[in-house]
Amino acid sequence: MSELRVAYQGERGAFSESAARWLLGEAAALPCASFEEMFDAVRTGQADCCVAPIENSLAGSIHRNYDLLLDSRLAIFGETNLRIVHHLLGVRGMAAGDVRRVYSHPVALAQCDRFLRARPRIEAVPVHDTAGAVRMVMERGSCDEAAIASGRAGALYGAATLAAGIEDHAQNFTRFFLAGPADAELRPRFDAPPRRWKTSLLLRVANKPGALFRALGAFALREIDLAKIESRPIEGRPWEYGFYVDAVGNAADEPLAGALETLRGCADLVRVLGTYPTRW
Amino acid sequence: MSELRVAYQGERGAFSESAARWLLGEAAALPCASFEEMFDAVRTGQADCCVAPIENSLAGSIHRNYDLLLDSRLAIFGETNLRIVHHLLGVRGMAAGDVRRVYSHPVALAQCDRFLRARPRIEAVPVHDTAGAVRMVMERGSCDEAAIASGRAGALYGAATLAAGIEDHAQNFTRFFLAGPADAELRPRFDAPPRRWKTSLLLRVANKPGALFRALGAFALREIDLAKIESRPIEGRPWEYGFYVDAVGNAADEPLAGALETLRGCADLVRVLGTYPTRW
Repeated sequence: MSELRVAYQGERGAFSESAARWLLGEAAALPCASFEEMFDAVRTGQADCCVAPIENSLAGSIHRNYDLLLDSRLAIFGETNLRIVHHLLGVRGMAAGDVRRVYSHPVALAQCDRFLRARPRIEAVPVHDTAGAVRMVMERGSCDEAAIASGRAGALYGAATLAAGIEDHAQNFTRFFLAGPADAELRPRFDAPPRRWKTSLLLRVANKPGALFRALGAFALREIDLAKIESRPIEGRPWEYGFYVDAVGNAADEPLAGALETLRGCADLVRVLGTYPTRW
Repeated sequence: MSELRVAYQGERGAFSESAARWLLGEAAALPCASFEEMFDAVRTGQADCCVAPIENSLAGSIHRNYDLLLDSRLAIFGETNLRIVHHLLGVRGMAAGDVRRVYSHPVALAQCDRFLRARPRIEAVPVHDTAGAVRMVMERGSCDEAAIASGRAGALYGAATLAAGIEDHAQNFTRFFLAGPADAELRPRFDAPPRRWKTSLLLRVANKPGALFRALGAFALREIDLAKIESRPIEGRPWEYGFYVDAVGNAADEPLAGALETLRGCADLVRVLGTYPTRW
C-alpha cells in the first residue's frame, strides 16, 4: 500500500501538522492555505484524509470546520487533543531582551498577552501563520525580530528558543478530528491502547420546549455519558437549532446502537459523523 | 446624570462600537486594545459598562469573553445580534481592480475568502483590527491598497466603497452582551419593544450519565424554551463540564424562577449571569 497522504491547514511546523503526525505517524503531510483547500484536497483525491482543528479550550468550537465536515460527507476516524505551547523564537545568538518586533498569528499573540504586555518595547505584528512567522524571521536573519510558534516549528527552521512556554494559560488545548471518506480504512495510531470509543453526531429536534430533554433521554435512560453537547443555529432557519453531541461508546454496539435507534424515532435529524477510538 | 461610558474592544469604527451604539445610543464609547483591557476599564471605574462579543454564527462561542465575564462578576443587561457585512474600502478615485494589497483582521480576511481567491493578484495582509486597517490605508493614501471593514468604519475615515458586501456568508452574525456591575441601572434601547426576556446562566452538574438530563428536566417539565446550551470543559478539572444555558424568560418570574430553584437543588452550581430584555 502506498503512503497515506494527510492534508492540514498551515505551513510546515504548524500545530495541525503536529496533530497529523500524532494521529498517523510519518504519513505524507500536505500543507494547505485554508480549511476550504484542505477539504478540497480530500474531495479531489490529492489527499486520503485531513486533520481539522474542531475546538479550542479557550477560543471555543470552530464552526467553520464543522460546516465543512458536514458538507464534505467525510467521516471522523479519530481525534486528538494537542496542548498548545508557545515559544519566543529567533536567530541563534540573540536574547529575549533584544527583541523589538514579534510576528505570529493573532490568536497566538492574544494567547501570549501577559508576556507581551510586560514587554511594551516589543511590537506585536500579526501574520497568517505561526510556522510561517518562524520561517520569515529565520530567512531575514534579523537580530531584533522574533516569532511566536511551537517548539516543533522552531526546530524545523533552526531557530533558537529565546523564551519557552510564554502562553498565558497552560490549559490551552486544541482538539483535532481525523476525517476521511466514509469507506476509507484509517486507523489512528496510539502510544497506549485507546481507553474508549466516542461517537460524534449532529442532532436536530423540533423547536419546542422539552424536545431536547426528550432526545437526551435516549442517552440518559441507558446511562450513556455525553462528552460534549453544543447548540448551533441552523443556517437559513432562524431560531431553529442543531446540536453537536459526542457520546461515549461505539455506534455499532449496545447501549449506543439502541439509543441512536430511539433518537431516530423522535428527532428531526440524526446524522452520525463518525465512531472512533480515543484516549480522551 | 452624566453620560454613560461604554468600553469596547477595537478602534473607532469597529463592529463592537456599532453594537455599543445599537444597545445604548450615543453613549461615550471607550476603545480598548484587548478584551482584558475592556473588562479592566469597568473594574477600575473608567467605564460604566462594556459590550463584549460572545459568539459568532460562523466562528462559535468566544470562550475568552465568557471567562472574563465570569471572573469580573459583571451581570448581563442586554444583548444584540449584529449582521457582519464586509466592504472593500480605499481612497476615493480608485477602483476595485486597482487593488494589489488588502489589509484586515485575519478573521475578516477569512470571511472574504471567496472574493480574494477570485482575485489572486491581491495580496491579503493581516492586521490587528478591521477599523484600524481603514485608518491606516486612508492615512497612507496609496492607490493600490485597500482595507476590509464595515461601512461604518469606511464612513468614519472617509473611505470609498470599492466593493460592497464581499463576505462569503450572508448568515454571519455576531452576538454581543452588554455587561456592567450587578447594581448598575443599564437599559438597552430598542427600535421596537423587546419581544421577550432571556436569562443566561452557568450550570455545573455531576460528571455522571443522566445528570444533565435531570437538570434539563427543570426547564422541560415547565415548558421553558432553551435558546442555547453549550458544554465547556472546566479548567483544571479534566473531564468535568460546565454548561452555558440561555433560557427564555425572566429569572424573577414564573415559570423560570421555580426552574432555577429546582436546579439549585440538583446541580453542583447554578450561577445566573443576567436576565435581560431581548428582541431575539
